[in-house]
Amino acid sequence: MTTAITWDDGAGREGRGAVRLLDQTLLPGTVQVDDVDTVDALVDAIARLAVRGAPALGVAGAFGVVVAMDEAAREGWDDAALTAAVDRVRHARPTAVNLAWGVDRVRPLMARGRDAVLAAAREVAADDEAANHELARLAADWLLERIDRPRLRVLTHCNAGALATAGWGTALGVVRELHARGRLELVHADETRPLLQGSRLTAYELAEDGIPHVVQVDSAAPGAILRGLVDCAVVGADRVAANGDVANKVGTVGVALACREAGIPFLVAAPWSTVDVDTPDGDAIEIEERPDAEVLVVGGVRVAPEGSRAFNPAFDVTPARLVDAVATERGVLEPRVGRVPAAVGG
Amino acid sequence: MTTAITWDDGAGREGRGAVRLLDQTLLPGTVQVDDVDTVDALVDAIARLAVRGAPALGVAGAFGVVVAMDEAAREGWDDAALTAAVDRVRHARPTAVNLAWGVDRVRPLMARGRDAVLAAAREVAADDEAANHELARLAADWLLERIDRPRLRVLTHCNAGALATAGWGTALGVVRELHARGRLELVHADETRPLLQGSRLTAYELAEDGIPHVVQVDSAAPGAILRGLVDCAVVGADRVAANGDVANKVGTVGVALACREAGIPFLVAAPWSTVDVDTPDGDAIEIEERPDAEVLVVGGVRVAPEGSRAFNPAFDVTPARLVDAVATERGVLEPRVGRVPAAVGG
Repeated sequence: MTTAITWDDGAGREGRGAVRLLDQTLLPGTVQVDDVDTVDALVDAIARLAVRGAPALGVAGAFGVVVAMDEAAREGWDDAALTAAVDRVRHARPTAVNLAWGVDRVRPLMARGRDAVLAAAREVAADDEAANHELARLAADWLLERIDRPRLRVLTHCNAGALATAGWGTALGVVRELHARGRLELVHADETRPLLQGSRLTAYELAEDGIPHVVQVDSAAPGAILRGLVDCAVVGADRVAANGDVANKVGTVGVALACREAGIPFLVAAPWSTVDVDTPDGDAIEIEERPDAEVLVVGGVRVAPEGSRAFNPAFDVTPARLVDAVATERGVLEPRVGRVPAAVGG
Repeated sequence: MTTAITWDDGAGREGRGAVRLLDQTLLPGTVQVDDVDTVDALVDAIARLAVRGAPALGVAGAFGVVVAMDEAAREGWDDAALTAAVDRVRHARPTAVNLAWGVDRVRPLMARGRDAVLAAAREVAADDEAANHELARLAADWLLERIDRPRLRVLTHCNAGALATAGWGTALGVVRELHARGRLELVHADETRPLLQGSRLTAYELAEDGIPHVVQVDSAAPGAILRGLVDCAVVGADRVAANGDVANKVGTVGVALACREAGIPFLVAAPWSTVDVDTPDGDAIEIEERPDAEVLVVGGVRVAPEGSRAFNPAFDVTPARLVDAVATERGVLEPRVGRVPAAVGG
């Protein structure tokens, strides 16, 4: 299985180590690994989505504190400069809560030195992968209890796989779990415009694992659901609010609306690090807007007239009333019936 | 305003005339006009979407009978060969009813000679443009009676403009009518994957007319609607069934679901030639599936792994219960409340 982000002790300037990232903007055509040992390079990698996916951003945030400490030592930064650098990592993207969460989980250890921070960051990554395995098991159980078919046809949106996490994946962790149990028939993978994380990344992971799948344009999802071609939708999340509202890749709420109309389960697979009990509801979640060119330039060619502008939100909010389940490693929440983060406690 | 399809008397072999098509696969980068004077070339142009849009296909069907008659005269075809050629035009694409309708409207005149057929085909085109002006007026009235804003923010999907018709447009005819009345604020144009009729064609038409617009990925539509960024959705149709179900470009039903959730009008703008009282409901409409490469190859580059396949339906069906209005030149139907084609008569 592909690894999106890890720490490499032997890389980086002066052999101090570096974050090793698989550049996800180049997949599936090119598999290129970059060693990142400056805050500038890490913030850039996050901004241009070389590393993306809420749980992977949590790991990037944690390792980012180590990168900042090493750079500070190398460049002779004072404490204020180091603090500012760590904050830059923390705010490199606004919507996923995991990025700030990853930074905050290791930051208190800075006084104990970079090795303590690095050990904690590695624990963040290990915990994430373990959480994914556990939540995938719980989600598979939950789905199989409710869907009376030998093998499930699962629709997913964007990439919530190994590439979006420290390993195994959230939504694709559920798919892998069903596949391992012999209970998966087919995955409908939304291509996920504008950056095609579905066709480039999800299909790549599924093809590598030999999991049957088809890629479809995002707007084919509601029709496929209403025609009875899939049994459930399973997606990841960038932030789950206290009331059960879910921010995820733009297009997710359209999938959820179609699932409710068709009466099939809409399940969100997300580690507890994605749950933000300090965010009361979706209205409080900042939705990142990204550059026009992501929409208007396709394959290097501008597809719209020069005078046209784009509206390019990266995420949308699915209200809790449309969310049948949020599978976490601590159990399966059911927002539609009131089992929300605020009710079960943080 | 751009003309998608017309008859040119001076073009074609032996100066017999030809269908003049603007090749919509090349817009907005290249404006290329093709003269088509063989059935093979016309069927190919329809199949690869050089000409597309239900009403424009109706005109193509009508002119196609003239092309077949001229080619038969040139090549010495017998009646059986001519009949087969006309049938090939009639069945070049399955979902839009207008193509068959256009052929059938002029076919009975074949016994009276090609000039009678050509005159009738020209009438099909003229009638379509007139119908668009009338239905756009009725649709604008209908919307403005129901939406209490000085200027409307309209979401549209795919291209139902001058390029999809003989002129003026259906959904974009409504936009033009609102703009002419000073009652339009902004158009949200869905880009419409896989072939980007929204960014390539709708934005092109809007830019030419100086109508304010933004282009968005298709999956941004539900979020934009639920966030209150638009006041209504206006789309075209490829076929309206007797019960009010509407077949239109894939993704339309997702827009309709979001409109119902947000409580804003979902209006279909379609000439009566799109209404098919012989189709009882959406289940009876054949949904064209198109080649994998349209989805998996973007800008000449394959974006999914070699082993991945696509699911590529070109259309979906919006059930009548989600359709607030179907504006035709004969009046505005309201399928949600039972004012459907079968009830008002064909």
